[in-house]
Amino acid sequence: MEKNSGLLKSAPIGVFDSGVGGLTVVREIMRQIPNERIIYFGDTARVPYGSKSKETVIRYSEQIVRFLQTFQVKTIVVACNTASAYALDTLEKNIEIPIIGVVKPGAKAAAEVTRNGKIGVIATEATIGSQIYTEYIKELNRDVTIYGKACPLFVPLVEEGLLQDPVTDEIARRYLAELIDIDIDTLILGCTHYPLIRSTLGRIMGEKVTLVNPAYETALELKEMLRAQELLNDEPPALGSNQYQFFVSDKAEKFVRFANSIIKYGILSAKAINMEEY
Amino acid sequence: MEKNSGLLKSAPIGVFDSGVGGLTVVREIMRQIPNERIIYFGDTARVPYGSKSKETVIRYSEQIVRFLQTFQVKTIVVACNTASAYALDTLEKNIEIPIIGVVKPGAKAAAEVTRNGKIGVIATEATIGSQIYTEYIKELNRDVTIYGKACPLFVPLVEEGLLQDPVTDEIARRYLAELIDIDIDTLILGCTHYPLIRSTLGRIMGEKVTLVNPAYETALELKEMLRAQELLNDEPPALGSNQYQFFVSDKAEKFVRFANSIIKYGILSAKAINMEEY
Repeated sequence: MEKNSGLLKSAPIGVFDSGVGGLTVVREIMRQIPNERIIYFGDTARVPYGSKSKETVIRYSEQIVRFLQTFQVKTIVVACNTASAYALDTLEKNIEIPIIGVVKPGAKAAAEVTRNGKIGVIATEATIGSQIYTEYIKELNRDVTIYGKACPLFVPLVEEGLLQDPVTDEIARRYLAELIDIDIDTLILGCTHYPLIRSTLGRIMGEKVTLVNPAYETALELKEMLRAQELLNDEPPALGSNQYQFFVSDKAEKFVRFANSIIKYGILSAKAINMEEY
Repeated sequence: MEKNSGLLKSAPIGVFDSGVGGLTVVREIMRQIPNERIIYFGDTARVPYGSKSKETVIRYSEQIVRFLQTFQVKTIVVACNTASAYALDTLEKNIEIPIIGVVKPGAKAAAEVTRNGKIGVIATEATIGSQIYTEYIKELNRDVTIYGKACPLFVPLVEEGLLQDPVTDEIARRYLAELIDIDIDTLILGCTHYPLIRSTLGRIMGEKVTLVNPAYETALELKEMLRAQELLNDEPPALGSNQYQFFVSDKAEKFVRFANSIIKYGILSAKAINMEEY
């Protein structure tokens, strides 16, 4: 990746996801690089991407990138595991600005952190089926074994707000039982919703298992990349400059309710836009 | 609706849904009119319809109707609450064959069965938000009160196979508590997945509450309509004539697994087709 050619440090970062999950990535970016402006797009009308074909996910991602570029973003974060798996390579080839996904940073952290070479990945059925984490981790370290486990109920449980709840505990115990039996020492939270039930997952897996949060690792990689490219914003945005802006493709109300429950930076608003125009 | 003009009794019935839920309607049709042939289409690549706009749901439904008509179906059943709510009126105007949805038969049965005038409706957020059951029931009986309750976790729980499970019990108890407090005497299962947890719902609501299954009522109305139009198939289809055919817009494997778990008529297969062509 070459140094930036004419990009502005003060330009915003574009972040997108198929829905609300990418907000956990936004939250990490807010924490780690608080001077940055963010334009978030959640494709809430077309969620979930997991059940769609690769071609469709690429087409949707390209539309969203065109939308984000209308804000002259200096970089784009694909805060969605499915879009990272299916569309990142194509997007990279076709745009001039740096772009990063959530899968590689998560895979890298897991490959570095494991001691016994047994890594678990929990994610949606689509992400597990794509074998994308296995592929990236194997590129970094051929001597590890990756155990994937699809956890389809976690997303609806999180979206229903059952973050600390006996039902979520019970479901998590069932999903994680085989990973505990296998004696993994590292667990990748391979879906952007899962950091919201991190404490439940950590309690069930026990202290000896390291949880890898790709949202955290992605924000870290983003920070390093912006620094290397001399694109980190040195100063906080001016007061009243709308530092964080949120857009969705479906009705905004439900999104705003969910967003306010996980991002504690004051009241957010969101705007619904028509993706057919991009 | 006029008498059929040239439609064949031996022609199949077309049934469609946004995904797998409509199979509960297929199951009732198989039971009540076992001589009929069925062409089922599940729009598994574009599920769920609930979060999509009315215009989009109409466009998708029109595509599916064109697909079903390539089989010279004699009638079409819209086995999806959202498509029934949004698209039925438009579809009716534009095709020559009779077409029925799931909402009206369910609303009719509930309006007839209630004694105390308190009717509960459980469904997805989209169906509850659309107020479609309330609208139809009020047309039939202005003196009843309808209490809607969205139950977003039921579909994922059913699709995960937790039909008889303490977790489903616990979630159902929470969702139904306020309907029990209100003392409803009739409960409409306003989502095609819910008949699969009928026994759990019945146990929690208690014997005094009548459960209305729109899938059952729709098959009943279909039978009466076909008889009135002299379109009921008098004889069973010839052996080996492929009485039930299933089509989906995404990969067929997961659909087949789910279908075989709820329809006990031997092993089913399904074919994936590209909806963009219709």
